[in-house]
Formats: sequence, structure tokens, C-alpha cells
Amino acid sequence: MAERHDAVEVIIAKRDGAELTDSQIDWVIDAYTRGVVADEQMSALNMAVLLNGMNRREIARWTAAMIASGERMDFSGLSRPTADKHSTGGVGDKITLPLAPLVAACGVAVPQLSGRGLGHTGGTLDKLESIPGWRAALSNEEMMRQLEEVGAVICAAGSGLAPADKKLYALRDVTGTVEAIPLIASSIMSKKIAEGTGALVLDVKVGSGAFMKDLGKARELAETMVGLGTDAGVTTVALLTDMSTPLGLTAGNAIEVAESVEVLEGGGPPDVVELTVALAREMLAAAGVTGVDPADKLADGSAMDAWRRMIRAQDGDPAAPMAVAKESETVKAPSSGVLTRLDAMAVGLAAWRLGAGRAKQGDPVQAGAGVVMHAKPGDSVTEGQPLLTLLTDEPDRFDRALESLEGGFDIGEAAQPTPIVLDRVVS
Amino acid sequence: MAERHDAVEVIIAKRDGAELTDSQIDWVIDAYTRGVVADEQMSALNMAVLLNGMNRREIARWTAAMIASGERMDFSGLSRPTADKHSTGGVGDKITLPLAPLVAACGVAVPQLSGRGLGHTGGTLDKLESIPGWRAALSNEEMMRQLEEVGAVICAAGSGLAPADKKLYALRDVTGTVEAIPLIASSIMSKKIAEGTGALVLDVKVGSGAFMKDLGKARELAETMVGLGTDAGVTTVALLTDMSTPLGLTAGNAIEVAESVEVLEGGGPPDVVELTVALAREMLAAAGVTGVDPADKLADGSAMDAWRRMIRAQDGDPAAPMAVAKESETVKAPSSGVLTRLDAMAVGLAAWRLGAGRAKQGDPVQAGAGVVMHAKPGDSVTEGQPLLTLLTDEPDRFDRALESLEGGFDIGEAAQPTPIVLDRVVS
Repeated sequence: MAERHDAVEVIIAKRDGAELTDSQIDWVIDAYTRGVVADEQMSALNMAVLLNGMNRREIARWTAAMIASGERMDFSGLSRPTADKHSTGGVGDKITLPLAPLVAACGVAVPQLSGRGLGHTGGTLDKLESIPGWRAALSNEEMMRQLEEVGAVICAAGSGLAPADKKLYALRDVTGTVEAIPLIASSIMSKKIAEGTGALVLDVKVGSGAFMKDLGKARELAETMVGLGTDAGVTTVALLTDMSTPLGLTAGNAIEVAESVEVLEGGGPPDVVELTVALAREMLAAAGVTGVDPADKLADGSAMDAWRRMIRAQDGDPAAPMAVAKESETVKAPSSGVLTRLDAMAVGLAAWRLGAGRAKQGDPVQAGAGVVMHAKPGDSVTEGQPLLTLLTDEPDRFDRALESLEGGFDIGEAAQPTPIVLDRVVS
Repeated sequence: MAERHDAVEVIIAKRDGAELTDSQIDWVIDAYTRGVVADEQMSALNMAVLLNGMNRREIARWTAAMIASGERMDFSGLSRPTADKHSTGGVGDKITLPLAPLVAACGVAVPQLSGRGLGHTGGTLDKLESIPGWRAALSNEEMMRQLEEVGAVICAAGSGLAPADKKLYALRDVTGTVEAIPLIASSIMSKKIAEGTGALVLDVKVGSGAFMKDLGKARELAETMVGLGTDAGVTTVALLTDMSTPLGLTAGNAIEVAESVEVLEGGGPPDVVELTVALAREMLAAAGVTGVDPADKLADGSAMDAWRRMIRAQDGDPAAPMAVAKESETVKAPSSGVLTRLDAMAVGLAAWRLGAGRAKQGDPVQAGAGVVMHAKPGDSVTEGQPLLTLLTDEPDRFDRALESLEGGFDIGEAAQPTPIVLDRVVS
């Protein structure tokens, strides 16, 4: 058992720039989980961590203490290796949807335990829930069976994994302490390590539509998480990827599912295909599987087969028609030229204001709402052509969505091409 | 009314090093007082203030917002000017007890609204409660009548003054955010300004037994408070005074009252007399009263008369015998020489461990407990003579008290004399 400490002692240590001891960290996380350390004490400590930082040892211990607060899963009994992916989230980021069945089709099991989105659009679960019948909640037994039989599962993370993180995350959200790299890294990695995956690929977004606006901070976050995974025995690699413009041509829920299916059918927007294949290759390599090219599995239909099995295993009908928004509004190109910029944040905010995302936990999301893009940076456009289509069930949402798109794109002479994958971080 | 804001917006502004606007400050203090901003949000903001600071305008506005959270008193109807004193607290600091009647004897009314101590010994109210019958709680009407008739009142501050500060102070105490100069200064000054005194003298302690261990920090606190008082129209001056060794020869409750009475009778330890007279002179000058020397009022018995009237007005019997501790233990001089150091912190901790102070709000204090000093730095001592007498009703407290005195004093060849008043700060 952890030595006895005192909340004020731990807060003051970090406030005054000291390193927290292993014993202090174990005690404070355990005591907070049990309610012995109060929310107002933990929020003061979080702010001190945000402003004064934690070193690699402290972050590793903090993560281990959060893992120890709950149950750990174990996939070692499966007949194939496992690999998981985590994205820090961005506008139009539907990559999980085609990626999980694609990697499964290559022989690696993908246990993708997800949360609900609090962002511009719904989270992965909200997107999948636009498929009629599909259910996010699985028991551990159902999940294990599906992983063995189908090779891919995307479902709701149970409350048993890292309960300390769940409590801490809700606290950080209301106390201005979300943006602390040690806390972000330990929050993500505690759940992934507790989940028991053998390999992990991190997709760390950089740009206006991402949590991390600059490359330096994104790299610091990626390096911190790769270090944590490696120290915990999980083969971990991170890609730093561009989020200055949305991924693909859709930002919403049902419309992103449809775009994901296009990719699985061998088509889809080039940027979504490129990133999906890049992440799939990293997951296979991290899981130790060689000699399979994910691009072939998209081309030969086996990824699409895995998708259908995955959706059906969770009671969804992959062939059923999906929700369509009742109302639409078009944004036209104000001049002719090349689209030089289409800001991810502006599009994300528009999608959110159209009803694709939620304002607070528990709010519903509209399945059909969102933004369809008819051009991406680098494409030529003609004055008056449709640039964006805004979708919602509630037309009084259009004004505010249009407002958020003001200044959100530029038409000029030539666009600077931006690569999707900006860098790769290994331990 | 204040503009509407959001707690997270205000926290993030200060976290990221911005100046808070007047509107943000007004909103957050008001919303916190009403319970709209939660404790966990305010503690994160406090930590950000502690680590990133506030400028003079922010601190003045923060103080004004705390004053606006409650009632303001008004002494302008009294027939004489008013002056108050605030001490930041130290070991053996009984100065308020002789000072209030002394200044009253000089023609200036002293409204001394005090709190309960959470320090080494009880607060001023706890000390006075060792006088049989004396009561700390007065109505506003009783207080006004006593000020008019006696000229001095020491009583419990009502809960109507700066309720925001009361709530904030309790929060800071459990969240490691006590040690922030902007928060300390605004906490003290909000109550003193709301109280309505015309003049204010601050006794800011420096040294091992004080809250501020170094002169630079103490000066910063003094300058901040003098600025706040001046800006609010209160004539304010601060003395920086030494707290490296206890004040006087006693640290406790009843024993400090007895020592205060000695001073009022024209005797008492020279350091207590010197500081009492110095503060009395500052209070008279700040109140605009000239031509009266407080030293004369100690010598001619009029200060002692004012003390008796002040105690009787609150139902105390100034002639009644006071509590005596049941048990005592002597610390003897281990060698002969000059006492070169007697550490205020060590003596304060010993007094606290003997039962003179409280561990948490609401705990009782022992009236008779404490430490009597038989020598002060600069005095010659002989091996085996009594150096300290420890007093308590519970003999099992001696061991821990003795422990805290280990290394707490030095006997050598000659002591460096330290002045009591180190500096004076005016606006």
C-alpha cells in the first residue's frame, strides 16, 4: 500500500516546482479515486502540473497509478496479435471506421474501445450509431468473441478501465486544465495500456482543427505517449498528421460513414485513403505482421467484407439506408481560381453548429447533420459553383454555421501542397 | 451588473498569463460567492493566480469585488477618528491586546475585528477568552456603543463583511494556495476596508516565525496592501517587523494576556513595549492626532484604565485569576554563554504541540498552555539555568514539544542585536 500523504503537501510540492515522488503520485491518484482527495484539491494540483510540468518518470508513474485504479484487460488468449489506434481527433476524422476492418482483413485483431465525442462532430460511436440497429455497448465476452471471429470491434469503453482517468477528465474539462501534455498523455495512455493491446499506433493531429495547433507541442505529446507505451511494454509508434484542413470531403456522422464505406469499396478521397493505409501499415508492423499490403485488401474487397461482418456482429445493417438531413444550404465560390485554404476549425465549428456535435455530455447529435465539401485545397473552382453544402434538420441553425465559415477559406492562384503525414515518432 | 462570463474562460486567461479584465474579476467573485462558480474552478484559478500573479489594477479590483460581496460598516458617525491595526501574525504576537486600549487612551477609536487563529497559538480572540466571562461576539450596535464609550473594541468579525473572502480563505487553506501575495493582500484588505476604518497600520512580520520568511516578499506584501488601502481612501502605512525570535517572553493564551497586562501597567518585556508604542504612534499619525505620546499613557495608568473598561464592556473580569496549566516541564541551558538565537518557529511549534493552538477550525485551545521564555537573544545564560518552561494540561504532549525545540536555540559568545522595526512602507 501507498505511504500516507496529505493533499496540501502534494499540491505545494508541485506548486513549488518539485518532482513528485512515486509514493506521492500513487497516494494522490488512489485517494482522489476514493474521494479522499477532493475535487478542489485535485484541480489545484492539475493547474500546478499544467504550469510547472512533470518529468518522464512522474508521468509514467501517474499513468501507472491511473491504470491501477481499475481493471486490466488481456488479449493474449486470442489466436492473432492485436493492434489499436488512437487519434487525438480532428475535423472529418473518420479514419477508425475503414481502418479497423482493413487491419482485421490483414490478420491483426483491432480492439477499438472508444468514447463519446465532445468535439465538432460526434465521436466514432456517434458516427456508427447512424447505422440502423448498430449498438455500441458490448460485454467483455461479446467483445472477445467478436475479436476472435471478426477480428475487429469498435465499441464503448467500459467504465472499469482507469476510473481515475474518467473522474479526472471530467474535472479537467470544467477547470481549464485540459491543455496539459502530461495530463493528456497519461489520460490517453492509461486507457490504452489498461485495455491490453499488444501494439499501438497514435495519430497525433496538428493544425487549426486539432487540439494541438503547433508542431512542437504535437511532437512533445507524441514523444511523451510513445515513451509511456514503450515503458509499459506496448510497441508504440506515432504519426504526426496534418489537420489544417478537414480530412476527406465530409464532416458529420452519417455522411462520414458513407465516405468510409467508399474507401472500403476501393474509392474515396485520396487523403482519407492515404492516411488509412499509412496507419494500417504502422499497425501491422507494430504487431509484427509482414508480407501483407493493406492497399491490396482495399482493392480486393476483403476489407469491405470485414466491415460488413463487424457491423452485423453488433446488430447493425450495413446495407440499410442512413439518415439524411431534412434541410440543406449551399455556400458558393465567390470567385474563380484555386482553393488555397479551407480551414479545419471553421468547417468543424460549422458542423457542430449544424447539430453534428454536442454542447455537453449527454446531448443528442443529429445523424444527418454536417458539412459536405465539394473542393479541397489545391482544387480549381469556378465562381458560383457549390463549395460547401451545409446539412441539418433544423434550418434556424444555418445562420450561425454560415457565420463560422466567414474567413474560413481563400481562393487564390496556387495552393502549397501539404503532406498528410508530417512526421513519425518512435521510441 | 457584471457582464456574463464563463469560469473556464477566466481560468484559462489567467493560466495563459493574461491580465483579467474588471468585468471578469467582478463576475468570478460574485459567481463564486453565489455558488455558480464551483470550488474546483476557483481553486484552479487561485493556483493560476499564485503562479502567474496579478498586477496592481487586478488586485485592487479583486479586493473591491470581495468588499462588494457583503456589507460595509461606517464609523464616520463616531465623535473621534478611527484607526485599526492588522498583524500578519507571529509567535508571541499579543500586541493587539495592549495596543487597542493604549490608542483609545490617546483619543483614537480602535475597532479591532478579529478572526480565530489557525496558527501556533490561538488568535487574539482565543487569548482574550482566557479571561473569565469575556465574550467575543458583539452585535453591530454593541460594537458601536463600545467604540463611542470606551474607544476600543476587540471582537469577532461578523460574517457579513466580505463573505467572498471567508469562502475563498477556507478554500485556499485546503488547496495549497494560501501563499499568494495578491490573494493574501486582497483577503486582509477587503475585510479592513469593508470594516470602514479611517486609518490602518499594518504590522508585516518577517522571519522564521512569520508567514513571510524573507524581507523581499514581506516588502512586496506590505507595498501591495498599502497601495490597496490608499486606493480605497484609507490612510495606510506598514511596518516590517522582526519575527525571527518570539515577541516578549510568552507564547500561549492566558500567559500572553498576563504579559500584555504587565505592559499596560508600565512594565513588560522591552520588545513588546517598543513595538506597541511604535504601532500606536503610527496609528495616531495616520488618524491625524498629534501632540499625544503613547509612552506617557502607559506610564500614567490611563492605558490600563482603558483596558479594564474594554474587558468589562464585554463581560470579562479583568481582575479574575486566569487558567494555569496543570503540568510543566523545564528546558535548561546546556552550557554557559550568551543566547545567540531562539528560533520563533521552534517555539511556536512547541506552543502549538502543547495545546495552545488548534490543528483545524473548530478545535478547542488550552487557555493555560504555552511556552514561557526565561531568556531572549542577547541575554547571558548559565549552564543548568531554566531557559524555557513548557506548559500544558496534558503531559503526553511534552515529548513532541521538546522535539520541536531541538536545534531551536544556540548559546555562543555574542549575539548580533536585531531591531524590532526593520522598515516602514508608505504609499
